[in-house]
Amino acid sequence: MRATVQTKEIRDAILDATDKLLARFGYQKMTIDDLAAEVGIGKGSIYLHFKSKEEIALSHVDRIIDRLCDRLEMIASSDKSPDKKIRLMTLERVSFRFDSVQHYSESINELLSSLRSKLLAHRREHHEREASIFESVIKEGQKQGVFEKGRSSEKAQAFITATNALLPFGLSTQELGARHEIEGKALAVAKLMLRGVSA
Amino acid sequence: MRATVQTKEIRDAILDATDKLLARFGYQKMTIDDLAAEVGIGKGSIYLHFKSKEEIALSHVDRIIDRLCDRLEMIASSDKSPDKKIRLMTLERVSFRFDSVQHYSESINELLSSLRSKLLAHRREHHEREASIFESVIKEGQKQGVFEKGRSSEKAQAFITATNALLPFGLSTQELGARHEIEGKALAVAKLMLRGVSA
Repeated sequence: MRATVQTKEIRDAILDATDKLLARFGYQKMTIDDLAAEVGIGKGSIYLHFKSKEEIALSHVDRIIDRLCDRLEMIASSDKSPDKKIRLMTLERVSFRFDSVQHYSESINELLSSLRSKLLAHRREHHEREASIFESVIKEGQKQGVFEKGRSSEKAQAFITATNALLPFGLSTQELGARHEIEGKALAVAKLMLRGVSA
Repeated sequence: MRATVQTKEIRDAILDATDKLLARFGYQKMTIDDLAAEVGIGKGSIYLHFKSKEEIALSHVDRIIDRLCDRLEMIASSDKSPDKKIRLMTLERVSFRFDSVQHYSESINELLSSLRSKLLAHRREHHEREASIFESVIKEGQKQGVFEKGRSSEKAQAFITATNALLPFGLSTQELGARHEIEGKALAVAKLMLRGVSA
């Protein structure tokens, strides 16, 4: 148990350092040596936890989505109305990512071009995880009679598709625009789509 | 008059050649010499019409959107119901772009990285043009009483935002997925959003 906690702590410290160095130097220029120095451990210790720089960067991105999904789950299991939950979740998936990579400036495109096909595969998985949380709330609303019956999976997917253009993936946060503008766009989409799923 | 027609014809021939060479070689490797040879005119003649390779590539992208907007305008001015027009237009903005750059494979990302900030500025303009055509149909539907009154501009913008993730911009058509999948996603979004704007 103690060992597991330590493992998680060291992994997290390495990923925290990754976040800093990716933002400062970008993926290409970040080295395992820099990472080890930033965490204050030996280079060999890094390799006990991750087998490559690529795996570290991908784990860092996955961790952002793990944290996002925790927050989505929290909203989904709260006692708010299904309508309100979907609105908050739509906003959260956009603003949480925005805040997570806001300090990256140009280097997010560099990360994308370096790890393109793997990042795309992870991204598809992330979107599926999010869609399944959305679907659970849509089903809840359908059970309560506030959402129209049927096609819960397709509808959940549509909320994901409709806000994907607001995520910092192909575009950096700077290119996407100001945070409140992005949020405004997400809310406008959520509003129309929510009327669309309502009974 | 005759001179204008000729100018337009030569411009179009140059942009047709641009389309071929961009797909075959990508932006970096495409030269004005190649273009002149492909069209069968002298290099100097190219410079009578465009001042740089950059301007040629941007004009090529603008031409795709000119053609798309012609088709959107045609749908908007047809005698179909506003609901059906919006559905067709949503589909068209996705599939027309897909078809226009489908033969590009990887080189679309290369074009994007070469001309990033200018392409982004053009893209914003393209989306505004499309939004204004969508808005004209939404207003028509509001006048007819089939769409709910108010916020026509915001609603038009929401249709654009909600399908932007399905356009080949950050992702190539190969990365986006199969054409019928993209179309299915666009229709699912359009369906919910249309219920959202309906009276």
